[in-house]
Amino acid sequence: MTTAIAGSNIAFVKYWGNLDDALRLPMNGSISMTLDAAVTTTAVEFSPDFSADSLLLNEQPAAEAAVQRASRQLDHLRQLAGVATRAHIVSSNSFPTGAGIASSASGMAALTVAAAGALGLDLPEAELSKIARLGSGSASRSIAGGFVEWYAGARHDDSYAVQIAPPEHWDLVDVVAIVSAEEKEVGSTAGHPLAHTSPFYQARLGELQRTLPLMRKAIFERDLELFGELLEAEAISLHVASMTSRPSILYWTAGTMTLLHALRGWRQRGTAVGYFTIDAGPNVHILTERAHVPALLEQLGQLECVASTLVCAAGQGARVVG
Amino acid sequence: MTTAIAGSNIAFVKYWGNLDDALRLPMNGSISMTLDAAVTTTAVEFSPDFSADSLLLNEQPAAEAAVQRASRQLDHLRQLAGVATRAHIVSSNSFPTGAGIASSASGMAALTVAAAGALGLDLPEAELSKIARLGSGSASRSIAGGFVEWYAGARHDDSYAVQIAPPEHWDLVDVVAIVSAEEKEVGSTAGHPLAHTSPFYQARLGELQRTLPLMRKAIFERDLELFGELLEAEAISLHVASMTSRPSILYWTAGTMTLLHALRGWRQRGTAVGYFTIDAGPNVHILTERAHVPALLEQLGQLECVASTLVCAAGQGARVVG
Repeated sequence: MTTAIAGSNIAFVKYWGNLDDALRLPMNGSISMTLDAAVTTTAVEFSPDFSADSLLLNEQPAAEAAVQRASRQLDHLRQLAGVATRAHIVSSNSFPTGAGIASSASGMAALTVAAAGALGLDLPEAELSKIARLGSGSASRSIAGGFVEWYAGARHDDSYAVQIAPPEHWDLVDVVAIVSAEEKEVGSTAGHPLAHTSPFYQARLGELQRTLPLMRKAIFERDLELFGELLEAEAISLHVASMTSRPSILYWTAGTMTLLHALRGWRQRGTAVGYFTIDAGPNVHILTERAHVPALLEQLGQLECVASTLVCAAGQGARVVG
Repeated sequence: MTTAIAGSNIAFVKYWGNLDDALRLPMNGSISMTLDAAVTTTAVEFSPDFSADSLLLNEQPAAEAAVQRASRQLDHLRQLAGVATRAHIVSSNSFPTGAGIASSASGMAALTVAAAGALGLDLPEAELSKIARLGSGSASRSIAGGFVEWYAGARHDDSYAVQIAPPEHWDLVDVVAIVSAEEKEVGSTAGHPLAHTSPFYQARLGELQRTLPLMRKAIFERDLELFGELLEAEAISLHVASMTSRPSILYWTAGTMTLLHALRGWRQRGTAVGYFTIDAGPNVHILTERAHVPALLEQLGQLECVASTLVCAAGQGARVVG
């Protein structure tokens, strides 16, 4: 049995829409931070005694669709190792599943690294990133630690993520304000194929050509203000694409809007510093520097719509821990 | 003293952004319904005894900026009449000011028609529409009754609104769910000049070339389902433009999102029929046919975030009433 741990990641420049759905080749490059405190821990054991793959997820037998998705991911690694042995997987998240914190990112990254370890495959990080990508696009980024860029590429072999700055480069923190732990209506896997139906999607892709180099610059120079401006505009751009797809997907809830307005108010009044981003779900991620966290948490504590908060710094990449 | 009454209007295809800010020539044509139960009543009296224009708005002396705006509007009519006489204006709305129900539309339409009447100007409807437009773009549409299209035009003389179907053509109803009567942060006049700063604005204008003829068709054929689909996509498109402008304007509040999700839920479960649109404010306008109103009001009554509702059918155009 091999156990791996992987952090989820928060994308500053988001992944939305595929060039190739089956290979999960994205339409655009993306940039993220791997999180230290929102992790999946996954143990994998291959044994000729097992007649089928099985998956225990958060101490419950997983739904059939989840087992099949994990099984297909193992197939990639079994193929590389030249084996057909079935596996038992035990996986658990340190955060609620399916609520806009990318559990598929940390889950697929942890599964990929654990299974590779269990099969004795010694794969370079870029290779693990490509394989993780096949299971979940954003998982490609959770293989690397710190600040990460996923190069879009145009084929399986050139679409993978790399670290562009280590965790200690910048004491940036993601304060996740969890406004709802309910399962979202449409997962991001279902959303990606709809991206191209939005009449605003091409404008989004065009705008990203401006955003990507500026976002790299903001990170390299630790320029919080430039970073925040790009972060919020890009978050809105992602949701523009989803809410204008056909059918329209509306991830924002009442709690989301309360938080966005509150955050802008705090900044204007100087009571807290932070910038929002929102994944394919209702929760609001507030990015700020470590020194601003206490004031921010105090303000968040006064909002009824915030069910809980989770503070994550930049974390390590996916790794075998036992 | 001449008194006129004008209904506000709800735009199904929205006005956002100008070709010419001073003349309020819009970048795109728009389509609306003039409302029967959200009206402004305005009395105008010109007298050589007055040394300056004055304005009593909802029984209060109006702010200086509002007086100046009204005064500039009267100037257009004084110029046509060849007089310089000052006026006293008494105006009142049947709905809260500045909360996303277009008080400037009904206000400027009523003022234009009352002042033209008081000055003895006998102007055709298209001419009144052009003059109203100079004071408030959407006021051009409130001059006409029923279902109205404002032709964008490219010069003062070809940018005006006309009736495309009379009020009795379709028993469509606008159920306004008022979630907040607070003044909004950014009025639409301040928003229009920002339209061009959105990287999504050109995509919006392109999409409108598809939307406008389909919206006309939906109205002509009283096709509620096609109408509703176009209505919601267009409302989102307007807010895409505002939330992606620089600076970003976020009109939606928690109450707005609660309503959008509730409405989609009611439709899916078949408990109420209606389609949303949202102006430059937080309130949600739900368009439906008369027969569906009781069920809709019952559902709305169960939402805490709905402060009040206002039911408006298609109304007459602006007219002198005394």
